[in-house]
Amino acid sequence: MSSTDRIHNFSSGPSMLPLSVLEEAAAEMTNYQGSGMSVMEMSHRSQVYIDIFNETKANLKRMLKVPDTHEIIFMQGGATLQFSAVPLNIIGRTKKASYAVTGNFSDLAMKEAKKYGEITVACSSEDKNHSYIPQQSDIKIEGDESYFYYCANNTIYGTEWKYVPMTKDVPLVCDMSSNILTVPLDISKFGIIFAGAQKNMAPAGMAVVIIDKSLAGKELPFTPKLLSYQVMIDSDSMHNTPPCYTIYMLGLVLKWLEKQGGVEGMEKIKIEKAKILYDVIDESEFYRGCAETASRSDMNITFRTPSEELDAKFVKETVKAGFDNLKGHRVAGGLRASIYNAMPTDGVVALAAFMRDFEQTNR
Amino acid sequence: MSSTDRIHNFSSGPSMLPLSVLEEAAAEMTNYQGSGMSVMEMSHRSQVYIDIFNETKANLKRMLKVPDTHEIIFMQGGATLQFSAVPLNIIGRTKKASYAVTGNFSDLAMKEAKKYGEITVACSSEDKNHSYIPQQSDIKIEGDESYFYYCANNTIYGTEWKYVPMTKDVPLVCDMSSNILTVPLDISKFGIIFAGAQKNMAPAGMAVVIIDKSLAGKELPFTPKLLSYQVMIDSDSMHNTPPCYTIYMLGLVLKWLEKQGGVEGMEKIKIEKAKILYDVIDESEFYRGCAETASRSDMNITFRTPSEELDAKFVKETVKAGFDNLKGHRVAGGLRASIYNAMPTDGVVALAAFMRDFEQTNR
Repeated sequence: MSSTDRIHNFSSGPSMLPLSVLEEAAAEMTNYQGSGMSVMEMSHRSQVYIDIFNETKANLKRMLKVPDTHEIIFMQGGATLQFSAVPLNIIGRTKKASYAVTGNFSDLAMKEAKKYGEITVACSSEDKNHSYIPQQSDIKIEGDESYFYYCANNTIYGTEWKYVPMTKDVPLVCDMSSNILTVPLDISKFGIIFAGAQKNMAPAGMAVVIIDKSLAGKELPFTPKLLSYQVMIDSDSMHNTPPCYTIYMLGLVLKWLEKQGGVEGMEKIKIEKAKILYDVIDESEFYRGCAETASRSDMNITFRTPSEELDAKFVKETVKAGFDNLKGHRVAGGLRASIYNAMPTDGVVALAAFMRDFEQTNR
Repeated sequence: MSSTDRIHNFSSGPSMLPLSVLEEAAAEMTNYQGSGMSVMEMSHRSQVYIDIFNETKANLKRMLKVPDTHEIIFMQGGATLQFSAVPLNIIGRTKKASYAVTGNFSDLAMKEAKKYGEITVACSSEDKNHSYIPQQSDIKIEGDESYFYYCANNTIYGTEWKYVPMTKDVPLVCDMSSNILTVPLDISKFGIIFAGAQKNMAPAGMAVVIIDKSLAGKELPFTPKLLSYQVMIDSDSMHNTPPCYTIYMLGLVLKWLEKQGGVEGMEKIKIEKAKILYDVIDESEFYRGCAETASRSDMNITFRTPSEELDAKFVKETVKAGFDNLKGHRVAGGLRASIYNAMPTDGVVALAAFMRDFEQTNR
């Protein structure tokens, strides 16, 4: 089946990968660059694989401008296992931490952290069904917390932090699963950044962790060895067999990203893509955005038609028209278009046209 | 590059996958069976992916004859994270456990378990550099242990348990990373079986866990949520995004395995393959097997030439001749041929011929 039969996939994750990356992976599947084997079949200690690993890590370091104070590590278990790893590794200093609760995943992260210390809510958007991001002045920090935690983009509710919170000297921990590599960052401001791979980076099955090395090495005594950031730093993510193929796929995605102008280029493209859909919503009396305008995500566009029946009809007709995964998350309802880096502008333009047609027919 | 340029890959893991499986994965990479997307791009909640997941799990259950008392779960972190998960989940009952130390990985597992309870050595083969498997009469079990732990095949030393230990009423926990799906089992004898995927099942990045459901739900209070077997049972391995593509690859491998006659067919083939190499060693005064004959592994054939210099020469010449990864593990030295399920008999025959030639030239 040819690549032209591919659909417009608006999945919130796992989600689209660039077609050229998939084609490259397919072409190299039985024999990677004359090595005589698939990347899946390589010993993680072999030179051919170490070269793939090192190049991928170096490209990620360069593209995210990761300073030498910080280390990049690749871990399994996705972002969810980091909900445990973060407190296990760094809550020990004061046994306290503070969480900004702006959606489902920050709430889950906070609940998990309560196993390991005293947790306070620094701010919450629950009062308005997580439709906005609190302002700096809303954030309560005492100063003796081991860390302050937030989730930079809320996939389910379609909100995104437009600023990096100031937290006095309290280390900043950020879940960037759904917007890493979409906006330039000053990594030196962060204690820990982590991100599940399956939205903007690679297939599911890995988290990228970027950690200020001075925070590592102080884990609670019952921390599973594989969750120790220090163990992962010391072994360069190879205490055991890493998710080799996922790292290889990340490498291919990074090379593709470079061709789009890197993170800086991607930022321009993603703003443009999001604007195409938000313009349809803003110009319409039919569609209604779920998030407050100032807090809207460029990754997950959440919206509704005038009724649940029309939402359901919208989903049904998009599937017929060659789109998929436009139904909102079950806890939020409504509709959602997830447009991560790999979603081409063409796909967004096609959805915008569909939305205008659907409005014409159903208003 | 054509498939005929593939080399004979004797890696101990990650290791060979069947060529037909790789070709199928490549063919479906940009568009899985008309879905319009790669398996890598599918939401794990979508019907098309759920169908892949359910079929894979059902095939594994059928082929391993997993009884309804037991559940199959897919976890990230490989076997190493299970070194922590096992005690976290099931040591709570008596706070004691007993380990059979027959190699590097059971030793690492035991050291990790010491964080969580009182650990005793049930038996050890360290006195003879792990060249043998202890007998049933060597195993010390008190009866009040929460579990007895062993590693069924020792990849590094090339030894394999030829019997399932009897442990009174103490639940049996077994790391089968390197010989799962190579020998029929009575699963009902086991409390927990786990296996990293990257030797006989799929690419690296996953462990398959088979657990007697009555053991779950009693984890220590500080157990990371994603390491709770009960959480994984209740969510059917989807508390968070699973390693979707790795599960898909396992599904392809299982279909291939079915064509080889399933586990029963594979057992015949693996005995035949191991015999080809052991015959060369046994008939030779040049090669020397590292493991005692009664304990020899059918998966990892460990041997030596008369000198370290000749070992090094052997490795060098195998690479030139189109073989790879025949160097022994750094802690054991010598030579090692890992011949998991996906290694074709042809590859073993070719290595046997090379070994005979090398002996002729160098004795």
